[in-house]
Order: sequence, then C-alpha cells, then structure tokens
Amino acid sequence: MHDVVMVGAGPAALTAAIYTTREDIDTLLVEKGVVGGLAAVTDVIDNYPGFSKGVHGLELAESLREQAERFGAKIELGEVSGVHDEGELKRLETTSGDILAKAVLITTGCDYKKTGVSGEEEYYARGVHFCATCDGAFYRDKRLVVIGGGNSALQESIFLTRYATHIDLLVRSNIKASDVLQKEIQPYLDNGKITVHLGVTPKEIVGDDNGVTKVIGTSSDGKDIDFNTDGVFIFIGLKPNTAFLKNSKVKLNEQGFVITDNNLETNVKGIFAAGDVRSGATMQIASASGEGATAALKIREYLEGRLHNPKVEQLEVTP
Amino acid sequence: MHDVVMVGAGPAALTAAIYTTREDIDTLLVEKGVVGGLAAVTDVIDNYPGFSKGVHGLELAESLREQAERFGAKIELGEVSGVHDEGELKRLETTSGDILAKAVLITTGCDYKKTGVSGEEEYYARGVHFCATCDGAFYRDKRLVVIGGGNSALQESIFLTRYATHIDLLVRSNIKASDVLQKEIQPYLDNGKITVHLGVTPKEIVGDDNGVTKVIGTSSDGKDIDFNTDGVFIFIGLKPNTAFLKNSKVKLNEQGFVITDNNLETNVKGIFAAGDVRSGATMQIASASGEGATAALKIREYLEGRLHNPKVEQLEVTP
Repeated sequence: MHDVVMVGAGPAALTAAIYTTREDIDTLLVEKGVVGGLAAVTDVIDNYPGFSKGVHGLELAESLREQAERFGAKIELGEVSGVHDEGELKRLETTSGDILAKAVLITTGCDYKKTGVSGEEEYYARGVHFCATCDGAFYRDKRLVVIGGGNSALQESIFLTRYATHIDLLVRSNIKASDVLQKEIQPYLDNGKITVHLGVTPKEIVGDDNGVTKVIGTSSDGKDIDFNTDGVFIFIGLKPNTAFLKNSKVKLNEQGFVITDNNLETNVKGIFAAGDVRSGATMQIASASGEGATAALKIREYLEGRLHNPKVEQLEVTP
Repeated sequence: MHDVVMVGAGPAALTAAIYTTREDIDTLLVEKGVVGGLAAVTDVIDNYPGFSKGVHGLELAESLREQAERFGAKIELGEVSGVHDEGELKRLETTSGDILAKAVLITTGCDYKKTGVSGEEEYYARGVHFCATCDGAFYRDKRLVVIGGGNSALQESIFLTRYATHIDLLVRSNIKASDVLQKEIQPYLDNGKITVHLGVTPKEIVGDDNGVTKVIGTSSDGKDIDFNTDGVFIFIGLKPNTAFLKNSKVKLNEQGFVITDNNLETNVKGIFAAGDVRSGATMQIASASGEGATAALKIREYLEGRLHNPKVEQLEVTP
C-alpha cells in the first residue's frame, strides 16, 4: 500500500515524486523501460530551462532521479498491466503482483512511431529525429529529409523551412493532410524550399561517423532513389503508452491519450495523468516536468480530502 | 513591432522566450524589476527539477536569462502600464513609449503580501518564508511561527506540522477561514502541535547570524510577547501583478489573477498568460517554466493562424 503510485518514471513522474516525497507522501514509481523516459535517450537537450548551454539527456535524467531519490522516492522496475478503481483505493496489476494505492499518477508517455528501416535506430538523435521543436534548430542552413504524409509531416516541414535550406518530403502513398495545411504548404513547393516525393517508401537511412548522409527511398515502380541530406525527421504518428488502461475506467481520447481536467485528474477520482501521455501534451520535457509539479500538488489536495470539497476555497482566495 | 512581447521576465517568460527565439520568433521581454522574478531572490531552490542537490535562485535565474539570450531574446527594463487590443496588433504602453506586438504573454507573477515589520526583509529566505511547499522541508524537527488567520494560514499550518515539532499561529484578529479548515485544524490544536494566538499583531522578527530566533507580537491589551522559533511563515495573502491590466479587456478573477483557457490564452485572442499571475497557478517555478514552454507553442500556433482554425486538427491526431 502506498499513498501514490506513479506508472512510469520519466520527467513528469520524477518531478512529481520530488514534490510528493519532499512532503513525506509515500511514493512508488513503477517503470518498465528506462528511468528518465525519452529524455534519457536524447543526446543534447537545448531547451530544458535552466541549463544555459544545453544538457545531455542522460545527465538530466540521472539528476532528476537522484533528486527524487534524495527525498525518498522508490523506483521499481516492472510493468503495470491494469489499473482498477476500487473507490478509496486503486489496485494496480503488475508483473510482480498487485499494488494498492490511494492515488495514481499516469506518466507512461508516448512513443514516436518508427519506420523500422535500417539506420533509423543507429542514427537516432545523430541525424534521425522525431521532434522538430526539439531538434529543428540544429539544422540551420542544412538539407533535410522529412518522412510522412499526414498533418504533422506537412506542418513540421513548413516549420523546418525556417532552418533548412531545402526539404525533401517523402510520402509513402498520398498526402493525407487537411485542406488548410495543403494550401499552406503550396508557397513552399512553389519557391522550391520543399519538394514532395509521392509514392516513395523509405528503405534505408545511411550515414557515417558524423551522422546521416542520405536516405534511400523506393519509388512506386520499385527503383531506389538517393536523397542526400544532413538529417531526417520522421512524422508518421504518435503512440501513447496506454494499452494497460484498456480495461480500466480511465477515459482516453480517440488516439489513446488520457483525458484530464484542469487539475490534471482523469475522469476517475484519484487517478491523475501528466506529461506526454496526456491529451493536449506538448511533447516537451519542460511542460512534462511542470505538469508533474502541478499534479503532485493536486494529488496532495486529493489525499487530504480537499480537491473535491467545494467548501474549501482555493488558496489564492485567502486574504 | 515584435512578434511577441512578454510582460515580465521571470521563469515563465524566460522559458517561453527560449522556445520562441529558438524558432526565430522575434521576442521582447519587458521587466520592471528583477530578471528571474521571485526565483532570483530565493536563496536555495530545492525542488526545481534537474538540480539534484538544489540550486541557488540567482544562479537559476542567470542560467535562464543566458539561455534565452543565447537564442536571441531581448530583455528591456521598463514598465508596461497598459495593454490595448487593436485586433491583429496589440499596443503596449510603456515607460519608454508604445510597443506593438502580434502576440502578448503576461508573466508578471504575483507577490506575497508582507507584514512590513522590522526583520521581515532582513531575514527573507533565512528564516522568513512565504511558501510552505517550497521551504517547509527545511524545518524538520524545528519550531515555527505562522502569521495569518485566513484559509492559507490554517491550511499551511496543518501542512507544516509534518515537519515542525510545534507551530505558534499568530492571528491579528480572529480566524477567517472556512468551516472545513477550522474543523480540520482542531485535532492539531487538541494534541498541542499548533497553538493559536488570537489578537496578536506581529511587531518584530528578531534573529542573529544564523537566522531567525524569535517573533515579538503585541497582544490586544498592548503587551509584547516573545515567540521563540527557528523560522516564520507568513500567509496574509497574494497580490497578482495585474494593475496594468485594469483598463484592458483581459478578464481577471475576483482576486485579480488572469483567467486563461486550456491553451493558456486569455479571453482576448493573441494575449496569453503563464506562471504565478494566472488563475490556478501553483506558485512553483517548475510549473511556471512548464507553462512558459506550453504558452510558447500556443503562441507559435497563434502567429501561424492555426490556433483558432478549427479545420486544422491537433498534431497528435495525425497518423
């Protein structure tokens, strides 16, 4: 039995745990993969506030973990396979048995869908990227390849033109984006900043010691085409890690992200969500951490019986 | 004319500026006081995520400033006295003339109300505190004085009992808190963890080189009473810095905090708010920074004409 169990141990959970444990709230984090989440496997993070020259992802992840553990957070490796609302208590099914918790924080994040081609994993963060806001600025005055044909691919290609000299957009079949975006991208096609290649399936990402050098694509008639480039951005979708919530009462949106209210609470009282797994998430570490802090304060209010008590006014009201 | 003008230069604005300027959005911050806001005048910040051993407030503030300036943020000292919505453009009246902006981010923060007694300023952050979540943990097994008689004072006194051995609660007149809180505090009065002193006005905070040693209060019959203590927490209210918005169209709540929607946008299109000035703020640096990042992404969407275009789906929807 714990006061709060956090599912996942990325920046949102670790920040929340810094807050809860510092306040002597008994906290357990259950992580099935890497402590630190996507941040831990990112090379250099340029925009996490407070590190003026940037910070290595692993370094930030380790620092967050140390900070949470310093105040008493416990981190267990294991997988949560189900969350059951039993009123006052929540029961989590895990690989090492059931865990009971008064409150639950879901911070399982979300993964970028991958193409699975050779070189994608090898050059991850060294030329292969999944987030334009995070890594676009590393490609000032460079050439880029973008893979994808949906809204994100078009949107982020337009965005990346502020850095890149030219973008080859590889689309497996046809563009499947909104009319608005198709209209918006037109001027970039007209002035040659973006070239769209329809019917091109990525086959291999090739590089050398300095990173990516080209993408080989296969055209619809089976021919291989080389696209020389300094980097590749892949936008073929996001996959929130919420399969374990399928048989729970927690409401997900159409894409599988967890729906929360202003208090970061789900539709189930006592179950909260923060970070990339949340509907409306920005996929930014700073936002995830900020939500972790906010969620921790809301969880404290919940545990103290104040969150759902309309008679207790908000703190800011008090003179 | 700027793409975005941020009013204030605390953690929320500096983080937002890291994001906007890194994306070549022309950004100006106008600050009337200290760059870094309340964070800059805080001694040690124990719970800002990413600094496992804590970080000095000034150091964090400097780091945030350097990071924002590295990407091209401009910071001007000056005071914004009015914000006018002129449709596509916003006009800001400042001490050095009018500034035009396509979007505005309000991050003026909020100040803790002060008692004004001698010693309050001298021992600030060395025994005098305004935030239990931030600094309570420094008082494990120590004695505390709490000043105030409203909801916050009661709520935070109860919270501080998890650290302090004993709390003297000094109330100038009578308790003005909700029935629920008055009921909640009763067991702590019964077991002697908290002693309430009604009709006691703080007169002086006394200390030595190591910090605060006692609070002198004046009782209603004019007698001075010494309260020996290791620290003082003052909860007599919050004052959001929104006087400059009085003649604007931006909606404030009853206490003067800025009301925002899920996109951190106010009721005026193109005017956003983040951090402590926002209704619902947690008064935590991590949350303010996180909101800054989120606001920056929303401002970008606004500048690109996407935020209010229902035809463009959310990025997370795109396959």
